[in-house]
Amino acid sequence: MNSPAPHTFTVQLHDTDAAGVMFFAHLFRHAHDAYEGLMAEVGYPLDELIRNDEPRLPLVHAEADFLRPIRHGDRIEVHARVSDLAERHFTLTSDFLRDGERVASCTTKHVAATENGAVALPSGLAERLQDICPRLG
Amino acid sequence: MNSPAPHTFTVQLHDTDAAGVMFFAHLFRHAHDAYEGLMAEVGYPLDELIRNDEPRLPLVHAEADFLRPIRHGDRIEVHARVSDLAERHFTLTSDFLRDGERVASCTTKHVAATENGAVALPSGLAERLQDICPRLG
Amino acid sequence: MNSPAPHTFTVQLHDTDAAGVMFFAHLFRHAHDAYEGLMAEVGYPLDELIRNDEPRLPLVHAEADFLRPIRHGDRIEVHARVSDLAERHFTLTSDFLRDGERVASCTTKHVAATENGAVALPSGLAERLQDICPRLG
Amino acid sequence: MNSPAPHTFTVQLHDTDAAGVMFFAHLFRHAHDAYEGLMAEVGYPLDELIRNDEPRLPLVHAEADFLRPIRHGDRIEVHARVSDLAERHFTLTSDFLRDGERVASCTTKHVAATENGAVALPSGLAERLQDICPRLG
Repeated sequence: MNSPAPHTFTVQLHDTDAAGVMFFAHLFRHAHDAYEGLMAEVGYPLDELIRNDEPRLPLVHAEADFLRPIRHGDRIEVHARVSDLAERHFTLTSDFLRDGERVASCTTKHVAATENGAVALPSGLAERLQDICPRLG
Repeated sequence: MNSPAPHTFTVQLHDTDAAGVMFFAHLFRHAHDAYEGLMAEVGYPLDELIRNDEPRLPLVHAEADFLRPIRHGDRIEVHARVSDLAERHFTLTSDFLRDGERVASCTTKHVAATENGAVALPSGLAERLQDICPRLG
Repeated sequence: MNSPAPHTFTVQLHDTDAAGVMFFAHLFRHAHDAYEGLMAEVGYPLDELIRNDEPRLPLVHAEADFLRPIRHGDRIEVHARVSDLAERHFTLTSDFLRDGERVASCTTKHVAATENGAVALPSGLAERLQDICPRLG
Repeated sequence: MNSPAPHTFTVQLHDTDAAGVMFFAHLFRHAHDAYEGLMAEVGYPLDELIRNDEPRLPLVHAEADFLRPIRHGDRIEVHARVSDLAERHFTLTSDFLRDGERVASCTTKHVAATENGAVALPSGLAERLQDICPRLG
């Protein structure tokens, strides 16, 4: 399978702040939108996981680098990929591109867990994540 | 009982947008914070209502008037009061004051409901709301 | 000209709250996204208005009716139209549809203003808004 | 001078999501609120820096560890400290405590910059940051 389609968005007024640029925390929101899109694409939409009380995939770590100011009206492509995959967790890395230039990047680590603690990722999900990131294989 | 204490906040950077003022939708968020404070004060904290699966109090209507630009660093007092109370619903009206001047106001209507539809407000809650708004009596 | 294209979005996890439905204030954010889309479509993208220090179009009133719970994963179409147009202000009304059913509606009133107070809408903008809403004519 | 006072907040409904816990990106918002409080405390409120077109302090990196689920109604103390200080940048580290237990931590790196690039921190600010974090000296 090919890489997942990029998630695209236009920076809205509410993404920005009085300093005239995107407020940094909103980048994590957009990275999560890209993650939701990727999960739907591999057949594990988050809303179903949550409603069916399947293992959740809570974030245990998130980080971002802000390379260029991002401004109101900018058109951004978010390219998300699985950058690490193990039995009980996976990591996504997203590059934020504007006109082909990387303006930010974001990494989030997700652990499969029930209320009693960490568990193995659903096997189908692990296969699908592997599938879209052949370089991990 | 006296009126509920005002909810106060300082306008944070993330409340503002590239036009230099508070993004309007955030006013509703702050009005909801005042509502949460009022509910805790009358002994019905929202988090307990939600966790205990008691009747929820979903909003069916919300509106706001924006009278003056609200800016980063402004210190705002939110004065919330019960402006209408009936068997199955109540309405809150909040005035947003800066240095004693009203800069915005917000009204939200809440209906008691289970998954099967509207129900009566918990009797204790109705009494407490009446209690803090004697002019309704 | 035809009506503006609807603004569509999927309800993301961050749109929802612990009560399991969309947090009401986010509806206003989505209505504003539809407004930004409409302004771009008529040739007056908000980011340019703000950057060029043209008259701003601040909201003086906003209101919404919440008709049905909106849930994580719901696919929503926002149909925005100009419902009132005068020399110095205009009003937008947006219907939120899920599978063709109206689940919410939102109205926002915008006034043309400089730092010195209300002014006439840019004439080109007034014409374009009239153009996309022939029933106002 | 003593350490800055902790920034405290109660987790509001809008902080949470349909999975029943705080949506991770909001932690960064709260960390920024603590940063704004710290800047006001040392005499450099962000709103004045932005309005006076002084060097801005944009974030170039942010990261967080999420150690325990944070829930609606939780009372959180954010203890922010300067964990690194150099001529042109500084780093804040914030611990999020609930009943004395650390439930999350967040680190943000800020660079002094004008539109032309990185510059030295205002000397007064550097002194004040040093002052509240004697272990850096």
